Amino acid sequence: MAAETLRIIPLGGVGEVGKNLTVYEYEDEIIVVDAGLAFPRDEHLGVDLILPDFGYLADRKDRVHAIVITHAHEDHIGALPYLLREVQVPDVWGTRLTLGLAQSKLDEHGLLNSVELREANPEADPVEIGPFRLSFIRVAHSIPDAVSVVIETPAGRVLHTGDWKLDHTPVDGLRTDVGRLAELGTKGVDLMLGDSTNAERPGVTGSERLVGEAFQQIIPRLEGRVLIACFASNVHRMQQAIDVAIEVGRKVAVVGRSMRKNMNISRNLGYVNVPEDALIRPNQLDNYRPHEVLILCTGSQGEPMSALTRIAYNDHPAVSVDRGDTVILSARPVPGNELRVHDTINQLAKAGAEVLHQENAPVHVSGHGHAEELRTMLSLVRPKAVMPVHGEFRMLAAHGRLAQESGVPADSIVLTENGTVVELTKQGVKIVDHIQSGVTFVDGLGVGDVKDVALRDRRTLSEDGVLIIVATIAGSNGGPVGMPEVIARGLTEPGPLMDEMRQEANTVLTQLLGQNIREIKLLQEHLHDAVGQLIYDRTGRRPMILPVIVEV
Amino acid sequence: MAAETLRIIPLGGVGEVGKNLTVYEYEDEIIVVDAGLAFPRDEHLGVDLILPDFGYLADRKDRVHAIVITHAHEDHIGALPYLLREVQVPDVWGTRLTLGLAQSKLDEHGLLNSVELREANPEADPVEIGPFRLSFIRVAHSIPDAVSVVIETPAGRVLHTGDWKLDHTPVDGLRTDVGRLAELGTKGVDLMLGDSTNAERPGVTGSERLVGEAFQQIIPRLEGRVLIACFASNVHRMQQAIDVAIEVGRKVAVVGRSMRKNMNISRNLGYVNVPEDALIRPNQLDNYRPHEVLILCTGSQGEPMSALTRIAYNDHPAVSVDRGDTVILSARPVPGNELRVHDTINQLAKAGAEVLHQENAPVHVSGHGHAEELRTMLSLVRPKAVMPVHGEFRMLAAHGRLAQESGVPADSIVLTENGTVVELTKQGVKIVDHIQSGVTFVDGLGVGDVKDVALRDRRTLSEDGVLIIVATIAGSNGGPVGMPEVIARGLTEPGPLMDEMRQEANTVLTQLLGQNIREIKLLQEHLHDAVGQLIYDRTGRRPMILPVIVEV
Repeated sequence: MAAETLRIIPLGGVGEVGKNLTVYEYEDEIIVVDAGLAFPRDEHLGVDLILPDFGYLADRKDRVHAIVITHAHEDHIGALPYLLREVQVPDVWGTRLTLGLAQSKLDEHGLLNSVELREANPEADPVEIGPFRLSFIRVAHSIPDAVSVVIETPAGRVLHTGDWKLDHTPVDGLRTDVGRLAELGTKGVDLMLGDSTNAERPGVTGSERLVGEAFQQIIPRLEGRVLIACFASNVHRMQQAIDVAIEVGRKVAVVGRSMRKNMNISRNLGYVNVPEDALIRPNQLDNYRPHEVLILCTGSQGEPMSALTRIAYNDHPAVSVDRGDTVILSARPVPGNELRVHDTINQLAKAGAEVLHQENAPVHVSGHGHAEELRTMLSLVRPKAVMPVHGEFRMLAAHGRLAQESGVPADSIVLTENGTVVELTKQGVKIVDHIQSGVTFVDGLGVGDVKDVALRDRRTLSEDGVLIIVATIAGSNGGPVGMPEVIARGLTEPGPLMDEMRQEANTVLTQLLGQNIREIKLLQEHLHDAVGQLIYDRTGRRPMILPVIVEV
Repeated sequence: MAAETLRIIPLGGVGEVGKNLTVYEYEDEIIVVDAGLAFPRDEHLGVDLILPDFGYLADRKDRVHAIVITHAHEDHIGALPYLLREVQVPDVWGTRLTLGLAQSKLDEHGLLNSVELREANPEADPVEIGPFRLSFIRVAHSIPDAVSVVIETPAGRVLHTGDWKLDHTPVDGLRTDVGRLAELGTKGVDLMLGDSTNAERPGVTGSERLVGEAFQQIIPRLEGRVLIACFASNVHRMQQAIDVAIEVGRKVAVVGRSMRKNMNISRNLGYVNVPEDALIRPNQLDNYRPHEVLILCTGSQGEPMSALTRIAYNDHPAVSVDRGDTVILSARPVPGNELRVHDTINQLAKAGAEVLHQENAPVHVSGHGHAEELRTMLSLVRPKAVMPVHGEFRMLAAHGRLAQESGVPADSIVLTENGTVVELTKQGVKIVDHIQSGVTFVDGLGVGDVKDVALRDRRTLSEDGVLIIVATIAGSNGGPVGMPEVIARGLTEPGPLMDEMRQEANTVLTQLLGQNIREIKLLQEHLHDAVGQLIYDRTGRRPMILPVIVEV
């Protein structure tokens, strides 16, 4: 590596929305920005969570100085405990709320004492971490206390935007600090890694305050119970709902484990302002009449075990909905969750509730800036080079086009994949390498022990089930001992086909043993192929076939 | 059943978008309107198609006079061959194009000679089928030649709208026949079964012609290849794309089996007008330069084996895209297909293509009328009663609200589920019964042999895989013969855990046999529970466990 070279390696978050993790490496010294997780898609059968592959960091364990978390969304902080288990990092940096939420997460994993939590203060002087000089700039997002990170090394000045929007009227009054961004632009930014989520969407995203205004329009006229489902981290949205509840004299119950936890932490740290007597516990709801309560709950994505889903299916211990009640789904379905969200809406409608959601009421705004906001950022910062991050390829490409329109030369716009190694030097940026960068599956208690081959097996099993053939043969030179057994699951009902398969297995086996073919592997292979062909001919299906030969 | 009673039983299509099938029964005489299929969701692991349960009709085989198909979309016609195999019906009625497409479908299933195809002509006099007097009214939709059906019996006059929109400028000039609908309203409609798909969406849907206008705006300025993906049945959209191609001097290649089939049938019947020299075969594409061709293809839903998906992944034998090419996704993702469509867009963007889709260009309109159109229909027809059909519950409920606002009394609006029996008499409509109405899965060659239990097994297998324990025991009073074998798939990698499981199985078995417990079922149960607990403790997973005991 040439002198004065900063290497930037995204291990997650480019080519996808999820599991953001970027490695910054200067002369063998490393800091990591964000340590997020992703949620499984359909094809990740049985998998609970997806982590970035930490291999690159694990191989450089003792050179990782710090992890900097830009904000406390799961796709930025969710992998933190797993990363800390693999790589001993002395310091985790974040703003106050981010650290508060990190603390609770590390506590759950029994990792609280293994790391120092250090406050990233946008008002304070830059901090020096090894060769890196870091400062933080406030940005507005759908969770309070989000920041951009400025990373200075002898190789140049980098702005890592994190997730942001240009909200000029945020609920806490803490706007994206356009003044400091402009100042930074004047000092000169050599490279910007920027949030691309909404690069394809024209115009600007609405202020969070618009959602509060919608609540103020909608809630006073309602006579039944009001339920509002949003992301458990959307603290300002909860604040706005609570404010309206207090105005109209409704008590607030917070339902759902993660929302209660976040509410507690946010209250303790002063990010939410709720008088004690405004709150009731979920099990007190039945003491109040419908128009006296407002329920904040999890489940805006139709997650199977979430509060709102259980309420919709009349399966929640404390909360139910009835004719005359109103449910506000204050969120947009994350792609892939649409059907589950629709199911929830249908169930709530069947129960008699009116359901307001972003398609029929202005009850949600995005936390990510749209194209005009990205243009504003590009104008303020005037980066010499741009590396779009945080998005699927089409979003990165759209962000790249915006950068080019803003005057960034085409060869200074780097579209990367996870594992791409980008070098920043005084000569500019270039892609120099690709490192191995896969994913790690969390499944039950296991981290990384379920791999692609297991998922491929699960896929086969899920499509057409499994068929087990158990054949017993006598040792040395004996023949088959009785008819083979055949067990099917997920394939077909018991019936003549099963008998036919046993018969076929028996025929194949008798024939092979008659030819004195006794090698287990070979017998298995023949059984597999013959019975497999029979099933395919009869049913058009290709189950997983497992022949077991017992020699006695 | 009282005299002069019409029974109406939806066997599919209410509470869902898909597999529309409605039974009309008057004094034991039956006609069926539509015979559609549904596509599987995530939870229908390995299932290819979903059919309505034909049980009610199969029990009344000889009383079904006719099947009337309103239009040739799969959710209205797709189950026709399966229904005809179970229930011998003399006549299938449909308009010319509908019959043309039905014919090809029946031919593929070898059923062409088993039924009479009879033309439903909106211009002709009503037809008498048993006690039913049927007439047809033209409606505009996203496939040509769609009709509403008027069903008259002594019990009253029913309008079954089928799928429709109020397109005042349809491509073929054949508008929804508002004149006849108004006339019908004046004569008096006792019950309307109406399309509810877009009842929640305000305003009106755009005319199909708008898509043609968008093509005319977009295509002339393009210099690379142009690919347009839409539903294979959207004949008018193909016509509009072809018209623009001819104007700008591009040859048209139609790619994808279903689209080529539909194009042939539509051309032969005169529904598409394409001069022979405008078309080229896909394998001729390489003889032309990018700006000389326009490709119509399947795959607008990101279907895994479709033309566009294969093109996106550079896996199509005849077609590829390159930098400078443009792909127009002229469709809306059906809920549940979003991720696959996004994947396709990302892959096409990576290949360098510009991708236009409904979020960034006006390249799609719906085939189903929005709320204002439903209001117009209600005003024209002035039905005494309304039964919303063709939609999820929330859509049916929204349609019900529109009906009520239009003056239909609340007790004359029936919200049903599949299997609900509605009776129409001179006294009005009421729900009188619910019959068994499930679904039938088509999986490979099998129709109906895969049932819920198989799907439950597949679900378990897909989550955590399968573990097979094979233990051999000696007959009469012997002990275990050697160590049990353990085979895992989709669960974990081979390793110490597998040895531990074998050991555990052996311990359990030895212990039980020592206590002279030899009943196979009991041994299996103990093995299942002990090994299951061990896996759960070690991994947090619950695979399907299949103990096999071989007695020798």
